[in-house]
Amino acid sequence: MHPDSFSADLIAARIDTAAERIAPWIRCTPVEHTGFLSRLIGGEVQMKLENHQITASFKARGAFNALLAMDADQRRRGVVTSSTGNHANAMAHAMPLLGIQGEIWVPETVSPVKRAQLEMRGAHLKLVGGDPGEVEALARQEAERTGRVYVSPYNDHDVVAGQGTIARELLEQLGDFDEILVPVGGGGLISGISAYLKAHRPAIKVTGVLPENSPVISESVKAGQLFEVPWTESLSDATVGWAEHGSITFPMCRDWVDDWILVSEARIRESLKMNIDMHSMLVEGAGALAGGALLADPARFAGRRVVLLICGARIAASTLAKVLAAG
Amino acid sequence: MHPDSFSADLIAARIDTAAERIAPWIRCTPVEHTGFLSRLIGGEVQMKLENHQITASFKARGAFNALLAMDADQRRRGVVTSSTGNHANAMAHAMPLLGIQGEIWVPETVSPVKRAQLEMRGAHLKLVGGDPGEVEALARQEAERTGRVYVSPYNDHDVVAGQGTIARELLEQLGDFDEILVPVGGGGLISGISAYLKAHRPAIKVTGVLPENSPVISESVKAGQLFEVPWTESLSDATVGWAEHGSITFPMCRDWVDDWILVSEARIRESLKMNIDMHSMLVEGAGALAGGALLADPARFAGRRVVLLICGARIAASTLAKVLAAG
Repeated sequence: MHPDSFSADLIAARIDTAAERIAPWIRCTPVEHTGFLSRLIGGEVQMKLENHQITASFKARGAFNALLAMDADQRRRGVVTSSTGNHANAMAHAMPLLGIQGEIWVPETVSPVKRAQLEMRGAHLKLVGGDPGEVEALARQEAERTGRVYVSPYNDHDVVAGQGTIARELLEQLGDFDEILVPVGGGGLISGISAYLKAHRPAIKVTGVLPENSPVISESVKAGQLFEVPWTESLSDATVGWAEHGSITFPMCRDWVDDWILVSEARIRESLKMNIDMHSMLVEGAGALAGGALLADPARFAGRRVVLLICGARIAASTLAKVLAAG
Repeated sequence: MHPDSFSADLIAARIDTAAERIAPWIRCTPVEHTGFLSRLIGGEVQMKLENHQITASFKARGAFNALLAMDADQRRRGVVTSSTGNHANAMAHAMPLLGIQGEIWVPETVSPVKRAQLEMRGAHLKLVGGDPGEVEALARQEAERTGRVYVSPYNDHDVVAGQGTIARELLEQLGDFDEILVPVGGGGLISGISAYLKAHRPAIKVTGVLPENSPVISESVKAGQLFEVPWTESLSDATVGWAEHGSITFPMCRDWVDDWILVSEARIRESLKMNIDMHSMLVEGAGALAGGALLADPARFAGRRVVLLICGARIAASTLAKVLAAG
């Protein structure tokens, strides 16, 4: 990896290229003002609705950009990817539209609903034993062995550039604001967004939001290196677990993210319900993180113009039933 | 009412005017292909996502069109409207943006969540005893007494024209299709849509979908006149109850709607859950009607290109909890 790859200006230029490349395939998602949260904090709160993106998550941006960035020979050979979640769903959506073959490696413990969604899209699944990190490593090895491109859910410059197109859209839609709250798992989303904002509007504060149960990137940044931070399950299942060793997202998070907020499971549940009652929209656990941060500490945001990145809506009805029953 | 008001061509022209007028204020909502329902029926199923419209329902279209159609004097005097639901929410959203004052008359039995949503938007509510039909009649009398415009949720040419802009968008987005399934309560939505399609693409079949528990318009059409069809509560709460005596929507439904399908409560619940699991989106009961019709009788749609109008997403978390707990 050339060190210049980590210049915010260079990544911002890749994001501009990505935005034009993926435009025919993705939705320019709305920004919606929330009266409820604005009153709560005594400021102005806008929501960027990637829960209404095609495939119901921002991951469609990175998936399309990675596939469209491939040359003719790479496209002909096809791809391997691994994910149980939103990245897999986005890849399964994008591959047939672009006429690219590929395998999606998923842990054999994948839920029946997620499997049905992938199969609905005609995905070629490979069920593998092991935890998500192990499946990721095996899929990468298989791609290398067979001369195919491996498309990581976050550890990939084209994926990061695709996710960063959200920041470009936001600046067009909103002009200026003070702070953006971005959910963080492997860090692909916040890396792209912070690169673009540092390049174009460095005064905007970029804050990562994570579940208390899995503060992998924030603890790693504190420690100065990626390490195996203990984590447990969270309703925000899209943001749990370890980032791949040597992930390109680590130095980006270390250098460009201004603050970190950890959100409790209770606040994630509260935010999810609030989004149904006050905004009439479905969010998954990770999509509820930013709202949960406001509910937990409204005073921190007093007088500010805040953007919440609502990253996705992929939650099973059975999981939602449990959240709503919890009262 | 001049009889020409019921010409599909004239209403289609009003819809073209409305589309340009409301464009800065509403979202051109996505059309989304569903692999799951396409396989189920052995055809091609697209969903028009008015659940992702601003205010989470198509009602924003009619509300903005009615308000923007008023002259300066009418705007200065302000409006009266009545609704407990999506029309009230849309009016409460639109009025402050357009600088128009108004009162929203709601039954005093309105749910706390609906009241909180309206108050979040700064609405001036007037709580009145009586069922929704009685409140509607009182609000209309009050508007006449005070020289203000009454904006009916459905019995209004500008409201019908606003809702009809959905059909214009659909023809731009999809070109051709065979049939569209449209939820029907007071009939404002299907009147606008069927007028536009009869004027521009008369071969497209327009089918009204209603809850079995409240087949008011379909039974009235069968009988040849609007009458007080018995009805009970439904999960599709936005489509229950009587249409106002003499409603302009009755002759439109009678002349332009090609077929009617009644949907059971069990199928509405099943469709609502299916939309969470397979499409990762929130729909209210009325938004689940069209999908419920496909789940109940897939064979009826075999080989067809069908559009489902997903009309809204405004469902309380407490109601959703009961639906999901019902298993």
